[in-house]
Formats: sequence, C-alpha cells, structure tokens
Amino acid sequence: MPEDFVDLGYARVDLTRRTRCGHPEVIFCMGKLPDEVAGIAHEILAHEPYLLATRASEEHYHAVAQKWPHAIYHARGRCITIGEADKKKGPAVGVLCAGTSDLPVAEEAAITLRSFGRRVETFYDVGVAGLHRLTASLEGIRACGVLIVAAGMEGALPSVVAGLVDRPVIAVPTSIGYGANFEGLAALLGMLNSCGNGVTVVNIDNGFGAACAADAILRIPHE
Amino acid sequence: MPEDFVDLGYARVDLTRRTRCGHPEVIFCMGKLPDEVAGIAHEILAHEPYLLATRASEEHYHAVAQKWPHAIYHARGRCITIGEADKKKGPAVGVLCAGTSDLPVAEEAAITLRSFGRRVETFYDVGVAGLHRLTASLEGIRACGVLIVAAGMEGALPSVVAGLVDRPVIAVPTSIGYGANFEGLAALLGMLNSCGNGVTVVNIDNGFGAACAADAILRIPHE
Amino acid sequence: MPEDFVDLGYARVDLTRRTRCGHPEVIFCMGKLPDEVAGIAHEILAHEPYLLATRASEEHYHAVAQKWPHAIYHARGRCITIGEADKKKGPAVGVLCAGTSDLPVAEEAAITLRSFGRRVETFYDVGVAGLHRLTASLEGIRACGVLIVAAGMEGALPSVVAGLVDRPVIAVPTSIGYGANFEGLAALLGMLNSCGNGVTVVNIDNGFGAACAADAILRIPHE
Amino acid sequence: MPEDFVDLGYARVDLTRRTRCGHPEVIFCMGKLPDEVAGIAHEILAHEPYLLATRASEEHYHAVAQKWPHAIYHARGRCITIGEADKKKGPAVGVLCAGTSDLPVAEEAAITLRSFGRRVETFYDVGVAGLHRLTASLEGIRACGVLIVAAGMEGALPSVVAGLVDRPVIAVPTSIGYGANFEGLAALLGMLNSCGNGVTVVNIDNGFGAACAADAILRIPHE
Amino acid sequence: MPEDFVDLGYARVDLTRRTRCGHPEVIFCMGKLPDEVAGIAHEILAHEPYLLATRASEEHYHAVAQKWPHAIYHARGRCITIGEADKKKGPAVGVLCAGTSDLPVAEEAAITLRSFGRRVETFYDVGVAGLHRLTASLEGIRACGVLIVAAGMEGALPSVVAGLVDRPVIAVPTSIGYGANFEGLAALLGMLNSCGNGVTVVNIDNGFGAACAADAILRIPHE
Amino acid sequence: MPEDFVDLGYARVDLTRRTRCGHPEVIFCMGKLPDEVAGIAHEILAHEPYLLATRASEEHYHAVAQKWPHAIYHARGRCITIGEADKKKGPAVGVLCAGTSDLPVAEEAAITLRSFGRRVETFYDVGVAGLHRLTASLEGIRACGVLIVAAGMEGALPSVVAGLVDRPVIAVPTSIGYGANFEGLAALLGMLNSCGNGVTVVNIDNGFGAACAADAILRIPHE
Amino acid sequence: MPEDFVDLGYARVDLTRRTRCGHPEVIFCMGKLPDEVAGIAHEILAHEPYLLATRASEEHYHAVAQKWPHAIYHARGRCITIGEADKKKGPAVGVLCAGTSDLPVAEEAAITLRSFGRRVETFYDVGVAGLHRLTASLEGIRACGVLIVAAGMEGALPSVVAGLVDRPVIAVPTSIGYGANFEGLAALLGMLNSCGNGVTVVNIDNGFGAACAADAILRIPHE
Amino acid sequence: MPEDFVDLGYARVDLTRRTRCGHPEVIFCMGKLPDEVAGIAHEILAHEPYLLATRASEEHYHAVAQKWPHAIYHARGRCITIGEADKKKGPAVGVLCAGTSDLPVAEEAAITLRSFGRRVETFYDVGVAGLHRLTASLEGIRACGVLIVAAGMEGALPSVVAGLVDRPVIAVPTSIGYGANFEGLAALLGMLNSCGNGVTVVNIDNGFGAACAADAILRIPHE
Repeated sequence: MPEDFVDLGYARVDLTRRTRCGHPEVIFCMGKLPDEVAGIAHEILAHEPYLLATRASEEHYHAVAQKWPHAIYHARGRCITIGEADKKKGPAVGVLCAGTSDLPVAEEAAITLRSFGRRVETFYDVGVAGLHRLTASLEGIRACGVLIVAAGMEGALPSVVAGLVDRPVIAVPTSIGYGANFEGLAALLGMLNSCGNGVTVVNIDNGFGAACAADAILRIPHE
Repeated sequence: MPEDFVDLGYARVDLTRRTRCGHPEVIFCMGKLPDEVAGIAHEILAHEPYLLATRASEEHYHAVAQKWPHAIYHARGRCITIGEADKKKGPAVGVLCAGTSDLPVAEEAAITLRSFGRRVETFYDVGVAGLHRLTASLEGIRACGVLIVAAGMEGALPSVVAGLVDRPVIAVPTSIGYGANFEGLAALLGMLNSCGNGVTVVNIDNGFGAACAADAILRIPHE
Repeated sequence: MPEDFVDLGYARVDLTRRTRCGHPEVIFCMGKLPDEVAGIAHEILAHEPYLLATRASEEHYHAVAQKWPHAIYHARGRCITIGEADKKKGPAVGVLCAGTSDLPVAEEAAITLRSFGRRVETFYDVGVAGLHRLTASLEGIRACGVLIVAAGMEGALPSVVAGLVDRPVIAVPTSIGYGANFEGLAALLGMLNSCGNGVTVVNIDNGFGAACAADAILRIPHE
Repeated sequence: MPEDFVDLGYARVDLTRRTRCGHPEVIFCMGKLPDEVAGIAHEILAHEPYLLATRASEEHYHAVAQKWPHAIYHARGRCITIGEADKKKGPAVGVLCAGTSDLPVAEEAAITLRSFGRRVETFYDVGVAGLHRLTASLEGIRACGVLIVAAGMEGALPSVVAGLVDRPVIAVPTSIGYGANFEGLAALLGMLNSCGNGVTVVNIDNGFGAACAADAILRIPHE
Repeated sequence: MPEDFVDLGYARVDLTRRTRCGHPEVIFCMGKLPDEVAGIAHEILAHEPYLLATRASEEHYHAVAQKWPHAIYHARGRCITIGEADKKKGPAVGVLCAGTSDLPVAEEAAITLRSFGRRVETFYDVGVAGLHRLTASLEGIRACGVLIVAAGMEGALPSVVAGLVDRPVIAVPTSIGYGANFEGLAALLGMLNSCGNGVTVVNIDNGFGAACAADAILRIPHE
Repeated sequence: MPEDFVDLGYARVDLTRRTRCGHPEVIFCMGKLPDEVAGIAHEILAHEPYLLATRASEEHYHAVAQKWPHAIYHARGRCITIGEADKKKGPAVGVLCAGTSDLPVAEEAAITLRSFGRRVETFYDVGVAGLHRLTASLEGIRACGVLIVAAGMEGALPSVVAGLVDRPVIAVPTSIGYGANFEGLAALLGMLNSCGNGVTVVNIDNGFGAACAADAILRIPHE
Repeated sequence: MPEDFVDLGYARVDLTRRTRCGHPEVIFCMGKLPDEVAGIAHEILAHEPYLLATRASEEHYHAVAQKWPHAIYHARGRCITIGEADKKKGPAVGVLCAGTSDLPVAEEAAITLRSFGRRVETFYDVGVAGLHRLTASLEGIRACGVLIVAAGMEGALPSVVAGLVDRPVIAVPTSIGYGANFEGLAALLGMLNSCGNGVTVVNIDNGFGAACAADAILRIPHE
Repeated sequence: MPEDFVDLGYARVDLTRRTRCGHPEVIFCMGKLPDEVAGIAHEILAHEPYLLATRASEEHYHAVAQKWPHAIYHARGRCITIGEADKKKGPAVGVLCAGTSDLPVAEEAAITLRSFGRRVETFYDVGVAGLHRLTASLEGIRACGVLIVAAGMEGALPSVVAGLVDRPVIAVPTSIGYGANFEGLAALLGMLNSCGNGVTVVNIDNGFGAACAADAILRIPHE
C-alpha cells in the first residue's frame, strides 16, 4: 500500500496516523535538519489541516516559517504549531508544575493538548515547598478529567496531588535540580515509586508523551 | 480527627481511604510480620466488606486464614482476598502479558481489579516473538476500555499494542529475563522510551499500581 | 599509646571512643563471627557500663547472652543491648516512619538513642498515602528537638514533615518497595533532592547513623 | 487563602515562608528567565527586607540590578543578595572545604548563612592530602556550633573532621575531580558511607541546602 | 618485523590490516589532531588504493582535502572517503533506521560498507510508530543477506524486523530520544534483551562496527 | 487463524515458529511452573520431532521426564532436550570460553546448536591469562564458519580472537568474576567497546541467543 | 607446543605460568565443580611443589583433601593451600584492614602472599573511626615495602595511610557496609578518587589480585 | 606549626609535601581561577626549584607565564612545567597507550614523571587491534621497571601487556570511545576485572595519579 505514506528518502511521512491514533503525525525535530523538518511539514500539511512539531530550535522554526509565515514558535515549550484541531468535547486536562523552572515541559504538554483540540487548565509553581499554593487551586484541579503533573528535584508533587484529588495523574519528571537528581533520574524514580493512587509515569521532560496519554484517556468511548 | 484512623502502634490503619480513593486500604505485606498483617486486616474488616493484601507469603496467608477461613490465597499473584467490591459499570480492563513467566505480575493486576469490582479480560503469552498470537485476540482487546500490558526482557509489547489499538496503555515492566535486563531495568527504560501513542508506565513488577491507575481512569466522571 | 585500645588480633577495641564522641564503641556485627562479637563485647564491658551492638543476628545474640544473660535482643531492630547510658537532658528525638515495613530501621534508631540516654518519641506508619495520620500527631512531633524520618518507596515523607514542622530533619531512606526503588536508591535520591527546608540524609537503612547525628546535634553546647 | 501567595502566572510567590521556615522564599534561578527572576524578586522585596537568589548567572544579576542597583553579585558562589537578615544569636557555623576548586560550593553556603543572619567562619583548602593544614585550625573549628564540610574527589574530609571535632557535620559532595568521580557521585557515596560520627549529607554541590540545615539546627529552641 | 607498520611517533600505522581483516586500517578521528589524521592518511594511501576515516569533523576533512582534493566529506555520517574497494560479490547489506534522527548512524554504516566494496540497500524512517512503512519494503529487505537496524528511544525495531525476516540482524542503538534513554542506554538494553531471533548488538551509535560485522559475515567462505 | 497456535490459558504455543525462524518454539523455563513446562512440551512435541528447553531446573526436568523418559537433562548447561533436528550442511560453529567457570554458558550455546542440527567444535578454558592455550587450537578455530566466544571478568577474549581469526565473532559476556564485574556488566561493556573486527554482542549469560544468531548467519542463502 | 598445557576438556591447565609470571597457576574455584578443582589440582601438583586455590567452598576443599589430606582450608579467607613457595628475599608486604568485617579479603591477600613465599605483616581493624589504633603501628607499617589496604564503607583508609607512609599503597575495596555502599561500589569509587599519593586500586573484595600486584612490585629487578 | 603551610585565603599551600611524599605540591588547576594558580605557583616557587600544574587551560598558562616567561605549556597533556627535579637513579618508567586519541592522558603521565626526575620511555599507538605494533617494542618495554598503560574503549591493553611482560602494570582507563564506554566506565571496569597478573588501576584519564604511583614504587628502599 504505497499510498499510506510518502517516501522522501530521509523520511517516510505517515498519512494514516490520524485514523489510527486520533491525530496526524507530529514532527520530533531533535536530530533533524531544518530543511528536513520543512519537507516533512509540507507533506503533512498537504493532507492535514494543522501541524505540530516538538523539540524545535529557532533554526527549525525559520525553515518552516519561510513557507508558512503564520506558523507560531512557542519558545518556552520549544514547539512549532500551524493551526489546531477542532475543539473536542469532554473535561479539560489540568497541567500542573512544581516550579517555574519546569515551565518548558509543562508548556510542551499544554501546547500539544491544545493542538489536539483539548481544553487545558494550567496551575504553575504549586510545588510542595509551599503547599498552600496548591490547595488554593484545588477546586479548579478537581474540575479537570485528567491531570498532568511535572516536577523536578525529588518529584514529590504527583504523589501529593494524587492524595488530594481522585483523578488519574500522569507524572512527568523534569531534569531540573542539583547534582544528584542526575538529569531527572531522581524525579523519575521518585514518581515510579509513588505510593499515590492512580499515578503513572512518562519519560523525563516528555510533556508531549504525557499529553498523548491524557488525550488517549479522554478518547475512551463511553456509551 | 482521631476517628479517621486506628493506631495499632506498628500501624495506623486508614479508615477514610475508600472515601478519598475509591477503595479501602490495601495491605502491602512485604516486610510486615504475619501477625501484623492479621491485625491490620482485623481493623479493615471491622469497617469494610472486603479485603485485599498484596505481596503476601504463605505465612501471611496462614495468619489471616486462621481468623477468616474463607480467605483466598492467590499463589501465582501473591495476594490474599476476602470478598470483593460490588461490580462496577463501565468497560472491562484488558490485562495482557508477553510470556508465561510474567504471570505473577499480570495476576496481581487482575486480582486487584476484580477485588475493586472491575471486569477483567486476560490475554496471556502474546509476546512479540509470535505476533499472530496477539492479533488473533485483537477484537477482544479493542473491546476493553483500558489496557494493562506486562512484559519483561526488552519490554516491546506495550509499544506494539499501542500501535494496534487506540486505547490508553499502562505498561508494567517485569523483572524476567537474561542478565542485562538488570532485574527489570531494561524493560522499564524501554517502556519509558516507547514511541507508542498513549503509553504510561508504572514500577517494575507493580501489577497492583497498574490496576489502581486503570481503576482511576475508569472512575473519571463523564456527564 | 598502647593503653588506648586493646588488640585482639581480629579487632582493636577503641577505649577512648566515649571521650572523643560521647558514647563507647558500638559493635557493627555484619561480617563478624559470633565469638568475635562476644570477645569485643568483653573488652568494652570491662571499661564501660553499657553496650550496643547493631546488625546482630540471633547467632550473635546467643554468643553474647551466654556470658551476659541479661543482654536484650531487639529482633525487629536487629540490636543487642546491655544496660543504657544515664538519661541525658534536653528535648526528645522524634522517630517517624512512613510504613510498618520501615519498622526495622526506625527501631534501630530508637534503640540506639535510648542506649545513648536520649528520650525518644515514636510516630510509626504516618506515610503520605494518608496524611491525616501524620497531622493527627503534629503537636507531639513539634515538641521534639530533632526528627528522624524513615521512608522507603519514593521517600517523600521527610519533605512533607519539613514543610510542616520547623525542626532539623534527618532523613533515612529504607530499602522497602517495588522493583525500581533499587534497594533504596529511589528513596535515597528523593531525599537528597528534597526541596524541604533543613533536610539532611544518611545511608540507606542506616537508623544507627541517623541516631548518632541526632545525638550530636543535641550535644551542641549552648551557653 | 489567596493572600498568602502572589500568582504571577509563571510563579506563585510564597509570602508565608518566613513564618513557617525562618526565612523568606529564596529564588532558585536555574531554568528561569532573567525577567522572571526580577519579577519574583519584586514581589519578595515588597514584603521582606532582604533577598537571596542562588544559581544566578550574570544575566540574572543584570535583570535584578537594573531595578535594585545595590544588589550584590557573588560570582564565585553564583548568588545575588540584597540586604541581610538581622544578626542571630548563637554559635557560628564553620564552613570548610577540601580544595580551592570547591570554593563555589563553600561560598554558596557561606553567603546563604550570612543572608540568614548567621555568623560564619571559613576554613578553605584543608583537604586530607596535607592534614596539618586542617589541624592548624582545630581550635577555631571547635568553637563553631555546626560544621559544613564540602569536598570533591573521594570526599574523605567530613569523616576526618568528624573524628577530630565533636560537632554535627553536614557533608556537601562537590562535582570536582577526575573521571570516575562521576560528577560528584563518588564523593556523595563516600560521605553517605562515612563511618564518622554525626555526619549527614546533602545533595551534590548543594551549599544552599547545607546552610539551611545548619540554620535549622541552630534554631532548635533550648529553654 | 618493523616493515609491517610505520611509526609516526603519535601513531603506528598498521600496514597488514587488510591481509588480516579484509580492509586497510580505518582512521578513528575522535581525539586526533587534524594534522595527525592527515599524516596517518598519507601512510595508508602510500600502501592502499582507498581510505576511510570516521567520526571526522570538518577540521579533519580540511586537513585531508588540502593534500587530496578529491576526498569526499559525508557530513551526515561524519566520514571522509578517498576512493573505494573493488565491488565484492554476494548479497547486499540492508541498512534500516527507525527515524530521520538516526540518519548519522545509518549513514556511517552505509558509507563504511560502500568503502569496503559492499552493495548497500537503505530503508530509512521505518520505525514501529507506523509499521506499514516497514512492511511496504519487506520484499527489498528480504533480498538482502544481512540487516543492520539502527534505532533510538526504546530500540524496538530490530526485534520487529527479526520477527518478519529470516536474516541475521545487527542492531545499532542510537543516542536519540528523551531524557531516560540516557544517551542510548535504553535502546542498548532493549536490543540486548530482544527476544527476536538472530539479533546481535554493537555499541551505541557505532554504525562503523555494525558494517564491519556485516562485512565479516559475508566473508565467511562457502565452498 | 486460530490454528497457528494453541492456547493453554497460561501459554499460547506457537506452531509456525519453525516456518518463520528455522526451528520450533524453544521453552524458556525461568519463572514457569514445572507443570506448565510439561504442558507446553506436550503441544510442541505433538507437532515437532524434537524439543529444547533452556534455563531448566531439575524440577522442570522431572516434570518433563515423567512423560518422556528419554528426555536428557544437561545439568551444566541447564537444558532439557528430546531428540535433535536433522544435521544441517555448512561449516561448524566454534564455541570458545575463557575459563572453566564459563562452561554453563558455553554449554547452553553448544546444546542449542546441536539441537538445531548444527555441527559444533568446542574450545574451552582458552582465556587470555595463558594465550598459548588458544593459539594451540588456531587451526581448528579457523576451520569454523562462525565463532561464539564466552568470557567473564574483563571479557577480553572476543577481541583477541577477532584479531587472530577472520570470522564473525558473537561475544557472550558471562556473570563470572569479582565484585566490580557487577554480574557481567564489565564483560558486557568490554565486549560492546571491543576494537576487534566483526564482533557483535548478545545478553549476559545468553548462550542460547548467541547460538540462534550463529544459526541465522549460517542460514543466509548463497546461490 | 602441546606440552605447555594439559587439556582436561573442561580446563586447559597452564604449565608455563610460573616461568612467565613467577608462580604456578592459581585455581579460581567460583563456578567450578569440586571434581574439576581436584582434577586441575592434580595436574598442577604433578609439575609444581605447591598449590593455591581461591574462592574455595568447603565442598571444593573436601574434594581436594580426599587426595591430599595435608591440604589446609583457610575458612576466613576461603582458600586451599598445599605447601608454599620458598621464602623470597626483600621487604615484607603489610596487609591492613579497616575493620574486623574486612578480614576475609585481607586474609585472602595474606594467604596468597605467603603461598608465593613473601613475608607478611598484618595490621587489622585500624580504620579511621579511631586513628590512634593505626598510628600505634606506624613503625611496623613503615618497615614494609608495599602496603595492601582493605576497607569497606567509604574506603577512606588507603588515603589516610598514603598520607602517613611513603610507600606504594594497593587499595582493595570490600563489599562491607550499609545500603548505599552498593556492594563495594562506594569504597571502589572512593579509592579511585583518592587524593592520596601512590594509591592504585584492584577489584572489589579482590585480595588475591592485590597480592599479585604487591608480588610483581617486589619482583622488579634492581641491579 | 603555622610555618609548614602558607594561607592565601583561597588556598593553603603545603610546604612540607616534598619531605612527606618525595615531590612538592602539584597544582590541580581544574576549577581554579588563573590568578589563583599564579598565586599558588608563587608560593611553591618561593620554596622549591621546580613546578608542575596539571589540567591547566591556556588561560591558566598565560597567568603563570606572565610572571615566569620560561614556563612551558604542554598543550596535549594540559600541563604547565617550570624546571624539573634532579634526575633520579633506577629503571625507566614505560608509558604505553593504545591509540593516538589516548595521547593527552599518556602525556600527562610522562610530563609528571619527567618533572619528578624519572626517566621515561614512550610506546604510543600499540593497541590490540594490531598487536605486532606492540610486540615489535617488547625488548624496550621489558627494560622498564614499571609500566603505565593507558587505553580507552574496552581497555584490554593492560591485560595483554601483563601477559607478555613480568612487570607491575598501572592501568589508566581513558574516556575515549563510542557511546557505551560511558566516558571511560567501560575501560575502567575492564581494567579492574583484568585477569592479567600484577595489574592495578587508577582513575579515568588520571595520567598524573599513575605517574605518582610509578614514582612511589621506584622509591621503595632496597638495601
């Protein structure tokens, strides 16, 4: 079936991803040349109404913006977007992070979800060093359907959130912290060992993956 | 509020866990003396109609069975159960495992879910070495709401399942394999790095945690 | 100065430890033959009024009890004690642990402190999965001078305690948990990365070391 | 209680930190934009008479100095300070380091303590390769109430200090050394395994955390 | 036998490598000065008709191109080539990679094989996130004698290929991916633990080593 | 296609493995109950003329031998065999090991190859501490088509063999050695970093995997 | 040259080891069957006047003692010896250990050296927790030519010894200690990072290797 | 004794190092400011006739050369030297390295030894990929008293040298290699697990430490 992808030599662009997974192929820019990103974008936009590229540098953005001037570069979240999916029904996804330094990861999750048409509520800098900052927003957090919780250092925030709110928590360890966080390993292990109820974990700094999982949860059919 | 837990000296039994998390306190038996497990069980059963204890040895079971002869010991899944929650509505949880050697972990997940009143469908020994064994069950798998996928060695099964079925996948790495799986580390890292859509991960051999997460996902209110 | 230690061939028993460090030499039994432990105990008790041996098996205890029938074996904390130091003035040390499974480590700390003449208050099974069990004891915890907090799994309890009580917290990671706690590594890294105020850390399962540090803190002269 | 923090969107500035922990919120600059640091500083200085920011780059400093020209940048210790707390009573904190290369970490500890109003005595380059450099200062070291000891490579200095001086020792591993110190891991493990009496450990290169712990120890009320 | 190598002081250039191993010495440029690479190239080209240098920077290339202007720099694969071996008989080597980001490693393998005179077929961006891109090329892949399969992230592609094609698979983990791939460790462990039939593994990002092994396999004499 | 496997509940026995991979399903016994191994063996032997089970304990063997008294238990290699494949044409596989302590791994490889119908030549205890023991057998080693080389400790033997013989070398790290071989990690890393020509690596102690790879190499069609 | 080793099938006994390395082959018993150890011993003793076997269990010893009743089993050091080399000239080797628990490793070194004909002086339990126990023996230590220093936990003793005595120090990390010594890793890293002068390191618990290195140092010809 | 060191505030320069260890204090420049290096050099040269500084950048050199124009910068070995010790008697030290890429480490060792007055013979690029390059120099290598052997990748060269030459071998792992050498860890573990006779190991890339150990070995008094 050669019609279900396009072979550019350096990339085989997947044209049936949306049918299978609910959204078109997303471009992971790390290690790709700017021209390659633009070339892949060209094929996707020939078939799909919107585009998301993650881990994009400014060079990647400039190569894309040359052809699509309305492309948006989200510097903090390192993403390029062109358009968005139609708004989906269902509850919002709450995106929480422990500190300002975790914003790049939280933003990657939020941008991804908005690109997929999900409603997002953000609660930033609500880490355990001052829990009243979290509890002040409990009502808004409880109104969400799924929670994405990003934290570095010891990564305790997902455990605490899971203890306070009865919702599935997708924990995202970040690479922020002093020496022995070992680029996110401490937070990762902390979250995997969480005794919090309903906590699952994605890769270090992987806001995109957390957003995909939240989207998959909200796609479960309930008849 | 001294009435929301009972202090046994060696344990403070949580009496409001069901209100907060949807199910009563579950006893994690590792490192506890048999008499302590029986003592904690006594307090829980004084307030709740059913009991689950995980990571239980035969010694733990005998201490419990002395008082509650109808307690069941699930040897493969290392669990003790007394009664079960009322059946809950909603889709079933699919529990898959890659090989027969992963059964203890898969069974821990299935027993936990049944104890919580969830419907469970099991698909065992469907690993990637012979994918036709998996594809033969695709219809049944797609009928589930959430999928728990346990695998050892390189832990590739969750990625493959996520590519075939549009459902959230909770991946459970197991400690089964040759030397360089390093007691589950290889499977854990493989699952965390999965490029499969909607995959999240729990701790090595933690079938219980996967079941809790699946239960939390199915508890999301959809009005 | 040959008079400041006794050379038994297999051990050089330190006779000036109390002068330098505030308490006599403590026998670390791991890897020592029972007769060697008894031989070292003989030399210590020839010069000191009380004895503490840690990481002691029942075999070690029997070799000691043959000569000192009043020796006590603390099975949970794996310690042998004969007598105790005179009661010291100053505030009590609070010993907290997250779960019943952490009792061996917490008990090692408590036995060591009592052997050194310190007053101890224990608060067991107060982990973050049900925080009301901790907050119910806050008044008693705040009345202590120093806090020793033992926890396994993700090791979040010291961070939470440090956020609630303005006292130095000595965190002790324990080796209790599922696979990816890697025999206490996850809890250790979590505690080292704690954003809690005033938290320091000792070795995995090292209740003895935590007790020594608490004792040293309470020995600071305040004129 | 919205009045106990200020929500800037990218940060929730904690206004009750001093009441709970003895000193106002300290800004951890790593991963924050210069404007964000300045914005947080603005809120803190609206409520508190002094400010400390750690892990600050020159860019962070310039953003702060634009508004508060009297801000001081401590280049070696990578800190920004504006003002200081009132001098506190009680013994001084001794800050020792093994080599000149450990100065950034030792300085971070000293600057933090002075910002909190503590008296500090420094003893730099007193590592075990030439112990007479340490013993020459023993009298001054013994006059301190608590000791912070920073060292890289094998991290042996805290053990040696603990053997010579009867004071609590807070050990800070530094990332200085040849290949197999693995960015401070060797020193960290060495210190955690110290057989020295009263030694506890903080994160790699975390002079700030050591200072907080020393401050907490000296805050213990002694009636 | 001083005539079987040339001693340049900084290098002993091996003149019998082709007799022993089937191809002349290949220059590994990492850590070598540009002039040293040029000097070694001079000795090799004095005895051999073609040259390969791997892990070459542009600086290495310029030093070589000054003397041999027809030298080719393969920027994506970081190789310098001058000429090629005579075409060898036998089946082609298939070089597959999971994503565009793995191209530098796949190209290093392909360039090395072509330099050795092997026929190469490339199949790029055929990762498991869209398996139809792989299955579309199965006929061409099955026509190869040996398969080199490069992949980052969880490194699942070699397992999948081994399940579909009955050929020896040389797996090359790449360092591409999010945090917890730990610079290729996740993919390496995944491939070592592969339950795929006939899979062996080389070092992370080592396309050159995979090419050497494929070449050695095709050199086995079959009378 | 339900006829291509048999579902026993605890296992799905693959009936088309030989068609796809050249040999029937092999039973990996680790973590399986003896009755399960016997049950799987029953299904395989209903369709295939021979059987191989690896990582088998004596208990596994007794369960099998009860039904097939002619089953052979290879204690050193921990395998059960019933019959063998027809002898295959082509060169022999050489199985080398560095020391007597590596015999369990080397034997697992040799038994697997013989079960698959391959001719095997063994060269045991030829490690680098006395290289004349290796060089004495060079003629026999060179007569083989592929070489499997097992070694523990620093794992240097594959590099040395690859330097002496122009054949593909499949290196198998073993878990034999003093402390810092970390259960085979040192040998594994050594082999992955080998500068030997044509060396690829399989999992620690995985003689079975090495045999499968050697068999796959000898199955390459040469017309 | 088939006469320079004897091939027993399971072992190739090296008959020229003494000529090349100064002492006959030593049997490393780990992973060998008792009969194999006895068989290898038989060949060695047919050519050499004495025998050393390390890492020997009681079973290994009984197999040897059946044929050579005068064989000695050194239980603490896990060695079997039959006879000894002629006494060699030159200075003694000093063997030090930090604690009684390190005796198995120190004894392995001492037994090996005596078997090789070296003079040994032992200084046991001289760890840094009570340095006066070490300094009391400085005169005897300085009279040795080479020093072997075994220590567990943080492994600080070799650094301290190297600071006090101008002799080459061979450091042996032992696996003794609390959790985060990670079976000797902490002591190993500590010793590798030692800033002590003239310190080199051998494998964890490898008293035998340290003895071989000391013997090699004393074999340097000085004309 | 304040006269045995000079306190510069940022450094305490050790003035009795030569008496205790055979050579004056050596400046480890990593992490020191250029002016600090120059200041320490000033104090050393006020008391000693020669100077060695390691891990020096060009900036460090310029600060030193401003005051001592005859200072030499050894760019490859990253050392600064001013003068040299008097030539010492005794055999030469052989410095070997496996590849040209290991030259920085080998040169650091050679420069250090020459600074200490030792005679040095170098044998560079003699790795195991072409062993005839090593065996061609065996006579010269055997004439040395001690051998320093630096190698990256799998670090096999020290084992091979120890098998060919009866001299103590000080192995230096280097950080050169492909991904899974993990910045020298593979070579380090390989060398620690060497079955070669008389091999000891120093830290990764630590040519200086190897030189100190070789010097200490040659300082052993032989009457």
